[in-house]
Amino acid sequence: MALVEVTRLREIVLGILLANEVPEAAALLQTETLIAAELSGHPSHGVLRLRRIVERIHAGVADPRATGRHEWTGAALLEVDGLHGLGPVVAMSAIAAITERARTTGVAAAVVRNNNHLGMLGWYAEHIARGGQSGIVTCTSEALVHPWGGRRAMIGTNPLAIGVPAEPHPLVLDMATGLVSMGRIHDHAQRGLPLPEGWALDAGGEPTTDARAAIDGSIAPFGGAKGYALGLSLEVLVASLTASALGTDVRGTLDSDRPSSKGDVFIVFGAPGEGRADAIGAYLQAVRDTEPATGGGPVTVPGDGARTRSELALGRGIEVSDQVWNDLPALRPATAGSEQR
Amino acid sequence: MALVEVTRLREIVLGILLANEVPEAAALLQTETLIAAELSGHPSHGVLRLRRIVERIHAGVADPRATGRHEWTGAALLEVDGLHGLGPVVAMSAIAAITERARTTGVAAAVVRNNNHLGMLGWYAEHIARGGQSGIVTCTSEALVHPWGGRRAMIGTNPLAIGVPAEPHPLVLDMATGLVSMGRIHDHAQRGLPLPEGWALDAGGEPTTDARAAIDGSIAPFGGAKGYALGLSLEVLVASLTASALGTDVRGTLDSDRPSSKGDVFIVFGAPGEGRADAIGAYLQAVRDTEPATGGGPVTVPGDGARTRSELALGRGIEVSDQVWNDLPALRPATAGSEQR
Repeated sequence: MALVEVTRLREIVLGILLANEVPEAAALLQTETLIAAELSGHPSHGVLRLRRIVERIHAGVADPRATGRHEWTGAALLEVDGLHGLGPVVAMSAIAAITERARTTGVAAAVVRNNNHLGMLGWYAEHIARGGQSGIVTCTSEALVHPWGGRRAMIGTNPLAIGVPAEPHPLVLDMATGLVSMGRIHDHAQRGLPLPEGWALDAGGEPTTDARAAIDGSIAPFGGAKGYALGLSLEVLVASLTASALGTDVRGTLDSDRPSSKGDVFIVFGAPGEGRADAIGAYLQAVRDTEPATGGGPVTVPGDGARTRSELALGRGIEVSDQVWNDLPALRPATAGSEQR
Repeated sequence: MALVEVTRLREIVLGILLANEVPEAAALLQTETLIAAELSGHPSHGVLRLRRIVERIHAGVADPRATGRHEWTGAALLEVDGLHGLGPVVAMSAIAAITERARTTGVAAAVVRNNNHLGMLGWYAEHIARGGQSGIVTCTSEALVHPWGGRRAMIGTNPLAIGVPAEPHPLVLDMATGLVSMGRIHDHAQRGLPLPEGWALDAGGEPTTDARAAIDGSIAPFGGAKGYALGLSLEVLVASLTASALGTDVRGTLDSDRPSSKGDVFIVFGAPGEGRADAIGAYLQAVRDTEPATGGGPVTVPGDGARTRSELALGRGIEVSDQVWNDLPALRPATAGSEQR
């Protein structure tokens, strides 16, 4: 494990993206989302993803210059063809348009297809909330989750993020609808640890605690039948609104050479909740102040953990796995590498 | 248990509402939502609620003539003061306005305060989806759910419904974010049955399997920490957008004399998903066709269970508990009762 100062890791990531012909504005945005994931303790959405991003650029399935083609098909609805731009670049361009529009229309939404991996959805929800607006963000992803009572993966880990302005910190929900991420399954496999029961099925659809068997199988939905219903509903809602792929046809965030076929949906409210940030903040504090269960720690609210981890990492640095750290130099193209010598 | 023909139960409910000076259009709508809940197997949102509705009308905290005051604060955002109308009446008036508006603006939302109990949210989501649009419906409710790791109720059972057009049936999600409803806790108490572990805490915040103790305590969120985060985020989102109450300040759906202080949010998309209903339907069928887990029944998708139960009940009638059935005659005011003689 390498402990890397945040500013240094940011410079390295930015340098790699610039060396791979990503324009500066796009590189800054992509870097910021990867670093934010590291800071908040979600390395699965952090620098680990950089290799895939670089490979997708070189394979021609990610266009670092594209920001998406915008078409307002209604006063409040922005349809976006991402033109296979980088996820955060296309997303932030769409969000900029709808946050501005929502100020006059009261609510506005962007439905996005042909976009690459967004990274951590909470980053976008927090951005919207810090701008004084409430937002909902969701997207589809590769089918890794089995239906409740079914034997094989048919549904994405379809995450959902919600941001609401509050003082002193906005509320930021960021959750996947899978019980665990495939990243955690891989992590257990690498460490040779068994999985807790109920996490996964093997390729044949039987329950397994063998992490290696689970990699070829499927992950359970979170929250049993209800969580399954939520994840499936997000799959269908997003695919319907964005005219993107469904289920096992979703591609492009776990591979390096296939065009992304997922969809992203962003909803932003103007400011009907203006002036409520103090009341929301007071309520969230009252929830935190709820007497904890016997033997339990203090109650937290969505976003607290990420913020605490970020503050810690800003002080002492980001822990990067040896594998990811040692892989970074190879992500500079040969020409850029020779310039450095 | 009384087995009552659907048309007869509908007539009885409608008659009671009309006899309590509910205008016909409002009475028809309120009746329809109560009957739909019975049909789909959710008696907690069915005729059981009629006594509370009648009592709230007489107490002056439900106005059967109010349909809500509409104010478009943006081209796509309808702010509604429900003026304490009946829940379905105010809701359907708002939904009619935003479904129409969304056809031109692409997306439209209604944020509603001062409205009475909506009943089953799935009913509204299905209505929107059957009209060819996708919709999201959520609302707050009395604090019955404890924070994950906390000892007392701070959060509503805050339900979420999603409707998406699909052939031959729309997808209809309708879920509460509590692990179980307080209705089921009451049901266990009446039958003298113990609760499964993990459902509830007692008034002192300790885990309990005693249903009577749980009634004075709190219900667990569904899905552990994630479900808690979702329920809390809906609480905060709705309260922020509708300027309604938060947490333990939410009132009016479990009592007969206090003005409702909850909020309702409806989001409708125009028709960006037009033409996708067949593809969505085919995907949902593929999910149903997933080979079931060993020893399990067929996989279902959200809305299947409610539809199956409705079809059954339409044929053989609705089972109404003796308590609810025997209580119905008392819900006609004395004058209306004497007219009948």
